[in-house]
Amino acid sequence: MSTHHLVMVRHGESTWNQENRFCGWFNGQLSEKGAEEARRGAQAVKDAKMEFDICYTSVLKRAIRTLWTILEGTDQMWLPVVRTWRLNKRHYGGLTGLNKAETAAKHGEEQVKIWRRSFDLPPPPMDEKHPYYSIISKERWYAGLKPGELPTCESLKDTIARALSFWNEEIAPPDQGRQEGAHRCTREQPAGHRQAPGRDVGAGDHGDEPAHGDPHCVRAGPRPEAHQAHAVPGRRGDH
Amino acid sequence: MSTHHLVMVRHGESTWNQENRFCGWFNGQLSEKGAEEARRGAQAVKDAKMEFDICYTSVLKRAIRTLWTILEGTDQMWLPVVRTWRLNKRHYGGLTGLNKAETAAKHGEEQVKIWRRSFDLPPPPMDEKHPYYSIISKERWYAGLKPGELPTCESLKDTIARALSFWNEEIAPPDQGRQEGAHRCTREQPAGHRQAPGRDVGAGDHGDEPAHGDPHCVRAGPRPEAHQAHAVPGRRGDH
Repeated sequence: MSTHHLVMVRHGESTWNQENRFCGWFNGQLSEKGAEEARRGAQAVKDAKMEFDICYTSVLKRAIRTLWTILEGTDQMWLPVVRTWRLNKRHYGGLTGLNKAETAAKHGEEQVKIWRRSFDLPPPPMDEKHPYYSIISKERWYAGLKPGELPTCESLKDTIARALSFWNEEIAPPDQGRQEGAHRCTREQPAGHRQAPGRDVGAGDHGDEPAHGDPHCVRAGPRPEAHQAHAVPGRRGDH
Repeated sequence: MSTHHLVMVRHGESTWNQENRFCGWFNGQLSEKGAEEARRGAQAVKDAKMEFDICYTSVLKRAIRTLWTILEGTDQMWLPVVRTWRLNKRHYGGLTGLNKAETAAKHGEEQVKIWRRSFDLPPPPMDEKHPYYSIISKERWYAGLKPGELPTCESLKDTIARALSFWNEEIAPPDQGRQEGAHRCTREQPAGHRQAPGRDVGAGDHGDEPAHGDPHCVRAGPRPEAHQAHAVPGRRGDH
């Protein structure tokens, strides 16, 4: 069983992160600080002399922009990039766009904590009257989804399920048919951060959040059970 | 036979274009002016309300950066992008890195014109002692080429041959198995510009050069013979 190296990076801070709003599938831009975080991430990957074979990212521009910054900063713009909604941030349903503090004031801190951290309890769904419903659900990049695939909200469990299927089918299928040798790749959103294996994938915005733009390297076999995470050297000192 | 729309854009001016040096496969950056040309190209595509299904580009960063600028400026960063050396600029062989005026002074204007415009006469090959040989030939992105595929110089005919095989196999294969409906795509390098069909593909730096960053739309059937080019509206007034 060959082992691959996988570098996971959470996108840089978005303008909605800055405003402390539930972002989810809203396609926000990086903030100035987020762009700088991405550049620092690129520098860390460059300092670690990491070279990749393929990159995976969500279809959200905050993740793609972070990836582009790393590709440009490490002179690897030529790398193939696979974009998929399956690596999107968790869909925050009806909470999308709400300020977290205001939501806590309205629904209680405890309820917000449950929505954010509960494993299988989704936030309230995004209905058709939600101010971001038509923006999000009618984006062209979701047009190819099968009926029922487009979520209106997601629990962590839901998020993991749709991300894990991509992991199993695309990122880490059994060895047959894969290129030989070290298979290193960078994935943008979500980031893995010394979590239990299942939670590495798809769980970007729960309690113990990874830092924006902070690359982490995992050694991964064909199945995520084989993960062993460590911070990419040269990046801050806090992991 | 379904018809697709193809938008071709030559990369923005590179620093080597600015210095009037033969660039070819040297992986130069966009100049400030080139970055601005790419932004203007993005604006033209945006003004024309063009939406794409897939993008093709060379592996050279001046083309990829131009593409990224258009994707970002038209809010289509999520699009799949196929990178291939088969869409690289023509390989200028031993002329790579030389200033065009100096080369003309040394070899004569007429000889340089022959090297640049002759259809089947390649420039002198790049040998192992050439100052850019190891930089170019040892780039990781060419490691997957089969023996004999990596050129040491290319005539226009050579360039067309390797680009056309990509056109026929990847961009415009016969309809079966292709997605239905309009298939619009943007391709970065080289650009097509009301040339004869064969010369649309792979012939970026001959006499009648397309303007940097200037999008052109062609209606294309499964074979390039069906091309009809027109400038994307809103872009300058010179085409």
